Amino acid sequence: MDFVFLEDSEWKSLGEFISTKWRNKKLVILCDENTETYCLPRLLAENPDMLSGTEIISVPPGESSKSLALVEQLTLALNDLRIDRNAGLICLGGGVITDLGGFLASVYKRGIPFINVPTSLLAMIDASVGGKTGVNAGILKNQIGTFNHPEGVFVYPAFLETLPILEKKSAYGEILKHALISSVENWNHLKDIGELDEIGPKEIITSMQVKAEVVQQDFKEGGVRKILNFGHTVGHAIESWSIATSRPLLHGEAVAWGMVVEAELSKSVGLPLEQFVEIEATVRNLFEPIVLKTSDLNDLISLMGADKKNTNEQLGFVLLKNIGNPVFDQFIDSEKVLSSLKKVFEL
Amino acid sequence: MDFVFLEDSEWKSLGEFISTKWRNKKLVILCDENTETYCLPRLLAENPDMLSGTEIISVPPGESSKSLALVEQLTLALNDLRIDRNAGLICLGGGVITDLGGFLASVYKRGIPFINVPTSLLAMIDASVGGKTGVNAGILKNQIGTFNHPEGVFVYPAFLETLPILEKKSAYGEILKHALISSVENWNHLKDIGELDEIGPKEIITSMQVKAEVVQQDFKEGGVRKILNFGHTVGHAIESWSIATSRPLLHGEAVAWGMVVEAELSKSVGLPLEQFVEIEATVRNLFEPIVLKTSDLNDLISLMGADKKNTNEQLGFVLLKNIGNPVFDQFIDSEKVLSSLKKVFEL
Repeated sequence: MDFVFLEDSEWKSLGEFISTKWRNKKLVILCDENTETYCLPRLLAENPDMLSGTEIISVPPGESSKSLALVEQLTLALNDLRIDRNAGLICLGGGVITDLGGFLASVYKRGIPFINVPTSLLAMIDASVGGKTGVNAGILKNQIGTFNHPEGVFVYPAFLETLPILEKKSAYGEILKHALISSVENWNHLKDIGELDEIGPKEIITSMQVKAEVVQQDFKEGGVRKILNFGHTVGHAIESWSIATSRPLLHGEAVAWGMVVEAELSKSVGLPLEQFVEIEATVRNLFEPIVLKTSDLNDLISLMGADKKNTNEQLGFVLLKNIGNPVFDQFIDSEKVLSSLKKVFEL
Repeated sequence: MDFVFLEDSEWKSLGEFISTKWRNKKLVILCDENTETYCLPRLLAENPDMLSGTEIISVPPGESSKSLALVEQLTLALNDLRIDRNAGLICLGGGVITDLGGFLASVYKRGIPFINVPTSLLAMIDASVGGKTGVNAGILKNQIGTFNHPEGVFVYPAFLETLPILEKKSAYGEILKHALISSVENWNHLKDIGELDEIGPKEIITSMQVKAEVVQQDFKEGGVRKILNFGHTVGHAIESWSIATSRPLLHGEAVAWGMVVEAELSKSVGLPLEQFVEIEATVRNLFEPIVLKTSDLNDLISLMGADKKNTNEQLGFVLLKNIGNPVFDQFIDSEKVLSSLKKVFEL
């Protein structure tokens, strides 16, 4: 994983990268209005030489910026700035900016190089690594995109100071997932930390490495990359369900509880009871409980992709044989899934 | 060039490809309203088994369909049809359809396989080969795209019967270009034909092969692929200039006359006079003359990218040392270019 660099406070890696691999490149920084305010000044202050003459493009924050309409506007803006294929794009922001910027870089004049400088914890350990870029089509998320690796990912942990605690909590769901699918050692380390505030550079880099190593084996998600979806079959369903409630869940919260349900299901492929108990206890300790009603359960099953009329239908999961040993393409009867949901949510 | 297949009247190559390499794939045919009327019935009639269950998507004909707005609509349509990454897209049409469809296939759910079935002569010998896909951003042509090869290009010469003579004439500019940059043998063969109606499968395949071989050496246009732009520095300028006139020129006409000017310039790198004379005579024989006024010349130079205030500015060209031996990145003073324009257009 030679394309991920941890920044010290002096930004040595980024400075070195720009002055060697990207020497003589015209640079464009893509940010949103938040990272323009909170992160860009720091980036520019720390890199005064490197960034003279750099163009700055800022877009509105939030998911609605992941659109083809904005890609077209940005293309016209880049063209007005006479940005050609020899330029380099720096994506400074959270997952929206790295997804959007990576896609823009993939298609602008048929492709220019890009790097990611993620500013949220979730973008550091997930969106900025792995080469999935994309925008939404209407309400359909990430339907239009590419597989295209950034030439580098530069992590500057001090950016985390600018983030709300909820963002960190959401990321923590994915960090726990990376531990569970990689090794008992990673899991034990996180479990023993147990506090969000103690997540630092070491944990971030470990989490990025887990993802990068999986992606390296299977870039285009033909097989083993699917293990990154552990917790997500149930998690996505809970997340979608929660949109209609008074407090929609964060992605990471939904995934965390999704992992508990899928760990419960994992007993059937051998997950030891004591490991399930550890996973459940860790999630209960870190995340608010989710209050479900019995009447919600069929909706959840349906959101997982099952046909309500077919009770024998099977659903696809990533399960854990034990911690650090995931298996993908596991198909489980929807009745069995219903039973695990009842147990975890005490219905 | 193992991905180009010439179809006999029974469509054996396409049928074989679908039944082996694309077996069990859900198929989608992208066409425009013209190819839906004139070409699709033939394709379906000749392949009754292969194409049962195939989805047909038709878009308006013409350049305006190369837009991101249409890419988004098509994405939603494909999603409604439950087209997933295991599907295959068949682009049935001219350059607009192969450019648009190739781009759509590059980004829909981060990429699905596609093949081209070009229905115009220009698409057969140019757009369908080479892996450049793209759409326009506003009035800027092909600003958004990818380098992505189709898995196959299937040429069915009988489609040419459906085409107007002007389309063939436009393509002939590019066919002459492929001859001039490849070999004296290819050039002599074409020169001796001299009639559009005699262009057949042999000439089409030869022309496709020239392009495919160049592209194979330099897919992303870092160097030698530039030779495909012979005639285009001047040709694009003439084409843009002609938009404001009473009869806008076809791309191939503009390129043909662009080649004459650039052949005139090529004398400075060694093109023998008798070869220049042959090139000029061939173009004069096949294409209508272009009537320029002296006052148009500065506009043309400016359209080639020169700054009007800087008379010493240099412009970049592909030139011919002799027929079959092109050189790229040749920079010529704009004064010299002006002088060649005057000679060719007798001003």
